[in-house]
Amino acid sequence: MKIRRVLLTVEYDGTAYAGWQRQANGLAVQQVLEEALSQACGHPVAVTGASRTDAGVHARGQCAHFDTDCSIPPEKYPFVLNNLLPPDIRVQQGREVPPAFHARFLSSGKIYTYRIINTRHGTALGRNTHFHVPVPLALPPMRTALQSLLGTFDFAAFQASGGTAKTTIRTIDRADLDLEPETGILTLRLHGNAFLYNMVRIIAGTLVEIGLGRLPADAFDRALATGDRLALGMTAPACGLELTAVEYPPAAFTDPARLRWHQEPVR
Amino acid sequence: MKIRRVLLTVEYDGTAYAGWQRQANGLAVQQVLEEALSQACGHPVAVTGASRTDAGVHARGQCAHFDTDCSIPPEKYPFVLNNLLPPDIRVQQGREVPPAFHARFLSSGKIYTYRIINTRHGTALGRNTHFHVPVPLALPPMRTALQSLLGTFDFAAFQASGGTAKTTIRTIDRADLDLEPETGILTLRLHGNAFLYNMVRIIAGTLVEIGLGRLPADAFDRALATGDRLALGMTAPACGLELTAVEYPPAAFTDPARLRWHQEPVR
Repeated sequence: MKIRRVLLTVEYDGTAYAGWQRQANGLAVQQVLEEALSQACGHPVAVTGASRTDAGVHARGQCAHFDTDCSIPPEKYPFVLNNLLPPDIRVQQGREVPPAFHARFLSSGKIYTYRIINTRHGTALGRNTHFHVPVPLALPPMRTALQSLLGTFDFAAFQASGGTAKTTIRTIDRADLDLEPETGILTLRLHGNAFLYNMVRIIAGTLVEIGLGRLPADAFDRALATGDRLALGMTAPACGLELTAVEYPPAAFTDPARLRWHQEPVR
Repeated sequence: MKIRRVLLTVEYDGTAYAGWQRQANGLAVQQVLEEALSQACGHPVAVTGASRTDAGVHARGQCAHFDTDCSIPPEKYPFVLNNLLPPDIRVQQGREVPPAFHARFLSSGKIYTYRIINTRHGTALGRNTHFHVPVPLALPPMRTALQSLLGTFDFAAFQASGGTAKTTIRTIDRADLDLEPETGILTLRLHGNAFLYNMVRIIAGTLVEIGLGRLPADAFDRALATGDRLALGMTAPACGLELTAVEYPPAAFTDPARLRWHQEPVR
């Protein structure tokens, strides 16, 4: 029987999970997805995700591939799997990809969204998807600081211990911070080629400390120049973070073997 | 000791609750709020809400009043109560109101929001706050139909059994239906003087059936003309509904005794 590689796009509410990656203690999204896939395909299935999101982190557009010889048409996987999955995990898309496709190594870009609710008493309805900052934030220095991140730099300072990256050079080419005045919700959106371990949460936490006046508006510049994690602020809570989208070059879907893979696994 | 009346604005995620109103079976938001208030005030407290939202229905701006002789400054109630309440209930505001103020009888307007996710596979992150309609909806007839609701009519057909209203005449003065194309989220927003039992959910369910082509675009007209519940569609699920705001005339806060109270309790 023909073995084919299938790429899934997966949305999940990470609140109840110990992150993406299967682990000994706690239930991971990967495990739940693999169990549903194994049931659907009739054989044990292992999935490889583009990003190993932490416990409590959400995803709208996680991507993950797996191999199977079962006859389910790839575009039918959302229908089949969503009947087997809990409602906090939804498969949004399925497509066949070439055997050399790799969800993690071939990713050329990612979009992350970080949400902050900047009101006195926070939010009940958004409690699992927003970081509550009860003190008013000054937006102008936050926006000024954000501009320093645009470009290709050594982001060594922007990494929690436990990161496995061999190089810490990354490119960020979009960084927006929007305020919805009626709700007090601040939305940070970052687009880059890849991100280091906890990089977005460190950026969000540093922005908040800049907005509170606890860190100067050039904190990012200093950290980029010195590589010093201590120039930056706290790691913002997981619940505010969402992996919004994973991108691939068009050739990944046609002739992946000819693509130069990244030197290392990237997040 | 002086007894004063305090008005709270309360946000809640209704997912885990058996609705607003205290009841024998199941935990109600009112009960949780009353227990926190009783603890804070040091005496049993009963609250009166503006709207008795059903099980699973959410609120951003529920209003509720209570009487107390305790010395907590009214504007401090959010701080005190949010330390005692679970995170799915947040008190957003507290203010002193005159002794004749009444959260339910003096309300002059309400805003309800109903959210529909109109994509094939629904949403994990919005599963508790959206009605999932997997078949594409035709917006133009839905918008046409909505216009029929604008004005003062006898909404007798727009009521589930169990309603206690003595008159079924209501005024709707704003009805918007907005589509966010990137997400497939349809947001219905209604502003009216008051709403009958399940009225917003019947309107939302009827709109969906109009959008599916199962009901004609003049379904609302027919129901208004005939009073026939069967001219309308299903009652849409509770999870899509949010009590967004409750309004009061300015005099309610200054001289409520001079206001003509509504003839009857209104929802």
